[in-house]
Amino acid sequence: MSDTTPTQQAEAWLSAFAAALDEGDIGAVTAGFLEDCYWRDLVAFTWNIKTMEGRPAIGAMLEAALAETRPSNWRLTGEATENGGDVEAWFSFETAAARGEGHLRLREGRCRTMLTAAIELKGFEENAGATRPLGVRHKADRGRETWSEARAREQRALGTEEQPYCVIVGGGQAGMALGARLRQLGVPAVVLEKNARAGDSWRNRYRSLVLHDPVWYDHMPYLPFPEHWPVFTPKDKMGDWLEMYARVMELTYWTSSVCIAASYDEAEKIWTVEVDRAGRPVTLKPAHLIFATGAYGPPRMMALPGADSFRGEILHSSQYADGRKFAGKRVAVIGAASSGHDVAVDLWEAGADVTMIQRNPTTVVKSDTLMQLAFDIYSEEALARGITADKADMMVASTPFALLPESQKALYDKIRARDAGFYERLAASGFALDFGHDETGLMMKAYRTGSGYYIDVGASQLIMDGEIKVRSGVSIERVTPASILFDDGSALEADVVIACTGYQSMHETVAQLVSRAVADKVGPCWGLGSGVRGDPGPWQGEPRNMWKPTAQEALWFHGGNLALSRFYSKFLALQLKARFEGLSTPIYAAPPPAA
Amino acid sequence: MSDTTPTQQAEAWLSAFAAALDEGDIGAVTAGFLEDCYWRDLVAFTWNIKTMEGRPAIGAMLEAALAETRPSNWRLTGEATENGGDVEAWFSFETAAARGEGHLRLREGRCRTMLTAAIELKGFEENAGATRPLGVRHKADRGRETWSEARAREQRALGTEEQPYCVIVGGGQAGMALGARLRQLGVPAVVLEKNARAGDSWRNRYRSLVLHDPVWYDHMPYLPFPEHWPVFTPKDKMGDWLEMYARVMELTYWTSSVCIAASYDEAEKIWTVEVDRAGRPVTLKPAHLIFATGAYGPPRMMALPGADSFRGEILHSSQYADGRKFAGKRVAVIGAASSGHDVAVDLWEAGADVTMIQRNPTTVVKSDTLMQLAFDIYSEEALARGITADKADMMVASTPFALLPESQKALYDKIRARDAGFYERLAASGFALDFGHDETGLMMKAYRTGSGYYIDVGASQLIMDGEIKVRSGVSIERVTPASILFDDGSALEADVVIACTGYQSMHETVAQLVSRAVADKVGPCWGLGSGVRGDPGPWQGEPRNMWKPTAQEALWFHGGNLALSRFYSKFLALQLKARFEGLSTPIYAAPPPAA
Repeated sequence: MSDTTPTQQAEAWLSAFAAALDEGDIGAVTAGFLEDCYWRDLVAFTWNIKTMEGRPAIGAMLEAALAETRPSNWRLTGEATENGGDVEAWFSFETAAARGEGHLRLREGRCRTMLTAAIELKGFEENAGATRPLGVRHKADRGRETWSEARAREQRALGTEEQPYCVIVGGGQAGMALGARLRQLGVPAVVLEKNARAGDSWRNRYRSLVLHDPVWYDHMPYLPFPEHWPVFTPKDKMGDWLEMYARVMELTYWTSSVCIAASYDEAEKIWTVEVDRAGRPVTLKPAHLIFATGAYGPPRMMALPGADSFRGEILHSSQYADGRKFAGKRVAVIGAASSGHDVAVDLWEAGADVTMIQRNPTTVVKSDTLMQLAFDIYSEEALARGITADKADMMVASTPFALLPESQKALYDKIRARDAGFYERLAASGFALDFGHDETGLMMKAYRTGSGYYIDVGASQLIMDGEIKVRSGVSIERVTPASILFDDGSALEADVVIACTGYQSMHETVAQLVSRAVADKVGPCWGLGSGVRGDPGPWQGEPRNMWKPTAQEALWFHGGNLALSRFYSKFLALQLKARFEGLSTPIYAAPPPAA
Repeated sequence: MSDTTPTQQAEAWLSAFAAALDEGDIGAVTAGFLEDCYWRDLVAFTWNIKTMEGRPAIGAMLEAALAETRPSNWRLTGEATENGGDVEAWFSFETAAARGEGHLRLREGRCRTMLTAAIELKGFEENAGATRPLGVRHKADRGRETWSEARAREQRALGTEEQPYCVIVGGGQAGMALGARLRQLGVPAVVLEKNARAGDSWRNRYRSLVLHDPVWYDHMPYLPFPEHWPVFTPKDKMGDWLEMYARVMELTYWTSSVCIAASYDEAEKIWTVEVDRAGRPVTLKPAHLIFATGAYGPPRMMALPGADSFRGEILHSSQYADGRKFAGKRVAVIGAASSGHDVAVDLWEAGADVTMIQRNPTTVVKSDTLMQLAFDIYSEEALARGITADKADMMVASTPFALLPESQKALYDKIRARDAGFYERLAASGFALDFGHDETGLMMKAYRTGSGYYIDVGASQLIMDGEIKVRSGVSIERVTPASILFDDGSALEADVVIACTGYQSMHETVAQLVSRAVADKVGPCWGLGSGVRGDPGPWQGEPRNMWKPTAQEALWFHGGNLALSRFYSKFLALQLKARFEGLSTPIYAAPPPAA
């Protein structure tokens, strides 16, 4: 093989693969894969988000899905490349229902990883660029309805005279990204936002919050940030951008609207969603209900024995907005992950006397290190090489979750060597550091448990300098009127306690709004089933319950940071559009009830 | 020469040109030009917008400007091309103060046209892409001011504790485009908008208005329309986009703010601008005052003898919003240009009985014909060839105004042949057609007089069908209580009269707000000095008074459609930025007082 180019190798493999698929020869298909192989499918073959791990899993999927999928027209797009002995190539393909894009990695002539992703549904393509709408009929017309009249009529009718096909609970970046994609696909949807203004989910957070991820990673679908946009977006600027986004993308976006309860009629296949719309009760009857209430569910408050006797204030971080009212006070911050650090800095800047209570070790990475080593494909340099955010998203998607720990471990070996002095000084201050139970760092923690990490944007120096004090390796025994007592017999005097103790799983929101039974059937959101504490097995291979069918028909979860909301909103929107149009959408490996 | 490539020919010419400039050998420079030659300069050599026509004019400009301009580093950018025997090439260059781009056309080894345009000032480049701002200092900081606090402070201070360097009167697309550019350049500016909301200058226009120009031509600076944006933007959608634009671009944009009066202190070099800000008087003291009050000035009402006796309503088109109140009425529309046609259709759609009174012949072009033949470089196909709106703007700018009639005549020969049947039918209906006094069509009319044309989006068919009646070739003698009497003795019974009679020059706004003396000194805006009626000589070579120094120090005009506002706002902003930074800006060919 070595005397042929990477492109020739990829072409040869792809055409043999295509021929085997054409003949329905599943044995021949799987023989083209290594023993240790992965096929990640985003809605193209499985109508699901699913990674098949190993030849038998791939064979089983094809047995179930190949006949209806009818894949064809496999073609390389661009030249293949060689990377550490592996040949990598991008390709396009079609199925009976969709056009798709994909990626493959070959090792010794066989496939190690494959990605197949549906990009658009045939006959239901979005109208953009050369197919954009005309905007007006160039013809005198006595029945003319202007754009603003049509928009006003639709806004009036949707949710009253006409029922939306989808109701999205939550109007942050995730709800908006999905709302925008459904809008472009012509699927009627209502977005419910509890706050008074679009963007308030960012504005209402603590005063000094600035996005920790860089602009190149944070674009919303369709409307990228302009070139002068700052690298790190301040929260209120993000709020303004999202408010503009909801308007310009013409979402049906209800502010001051809270979902009170929802129930699904399994016979009629319809939801009844009770909404408080600015004090007025409204009942919606969508076919699908999507929870996009934030990456996590309700605030998680830890039990604090003696809390009732405490003379000062005890707040959850979600209730914390501005440290200035705590100037001069002794504040105990419980928790040493992202919100614990940010709140501690905000308090210190406001002149409070801050002690962080660290219950578990934290993975810390310096922001500029992360920018240079981990965000290399989301950067100005990547753009100069033609790697747009959409392309970078596909590159990220091409690595199955099972293989992420390997590459993340290598990344963190580099990071730890590079910033060894920083980590030594931070540890010397009494702060407990870790890099995850398998040394794989921040992103694996994020996917597995969504907690226990901090991208350092200044707090670590304050900790090293003793400006923010740390109590580590202790458990809280109880709270007295003016202090916190620890299990080692020591005490911390405090006027205020801020619990930066995270959030419950989004399925707790389902328990509150739908029922405990449905929540239990669906099970928790997020986590990979890695077996790490807080991420129970069995192994899922993909984030649990996110962006794909759940054990409850017509109930979906959407969320994540800006990048995940951007990328996965596309695949969730395609799944909803297919159902809206009455296409056949046989789900491969539909999730069984969790309980 | 014919055995060398176009690129070799362009390179040879450019290096000889550069060498002659280096040596200050102006004779050698001008010898490189044809007798019939043009050098159009946008702020690079002249600190003006000026076309030098012929060798002596080029020589005179260089005599005056070369020493201080110190041009250097002339390089072709990309390959030269051959077009009808002419070699065309793009190039970059520098001056002492700026980096520039340009274009040249060679014929038989000599230069026929040259464009030189300043793109950025050295040391004062905009921060975008790789140099975008960070958005946050990653460091704990007790004096931290958040983005929203800084923004609120600035909004509070500018115009009260701190004076803006520029005041822009008018907050439509022109005022916003300039405001956005000044913002990116760090020049403090306040935009005054008389309406209650940004975007109302579009929203307040007649109900059925949709932009006649296509989306590819209409982008605002920095924030292009997204790919799904319609080809023709409805007015209210444009209003929403502009409202978002003012917010996202962080303009200091005062709504409900009317400029009442302005005077310039020639000794102190400072304006005193009296503003009614939502009922509260505010005095601003900017160094520069920019009028961006719309392409034209106050409404032009024609004298209508007997108007007082008329029993119905007489409106100017600027007061016309919605035809529905005129359903069933007999409406006389005076004027047969764009607004006359649009208003007539709006009335017809509303069920009025409409007669258009045509005083002068009109140039009519079908919209789709114009899209295909005239907007070819602003299109999806052009984008596919790498021609962005910015590139297309430069391509347009590369043709001096003196040569436009030649290419426009050729375009209209094509248009008239293509749509011969359409024009025959329209003429047969009694409508008076023309293509300008020299058959050069719509765009030349737009530049020369800004009137007398219509892009057909449906009205012409109604005229051919007799649905909109036309009275052509008559003059109005007087108005009676219920009719209009014409000079041929005929009469038209009417319940309502709408005067679509256009607008006065923007310098009438100056007369109202500053003084008649200053208005007369500056003279009218727009027009090329072509000698055509409504565009008096002498020949200017560029639109009169627009985007460049006027005879009144520190008084500027900005405006035009979206495309002109986008392109020329850049050069106006660079002129203002240079002054703000105290750079030397010797104006070549400063305009003499007009009166």
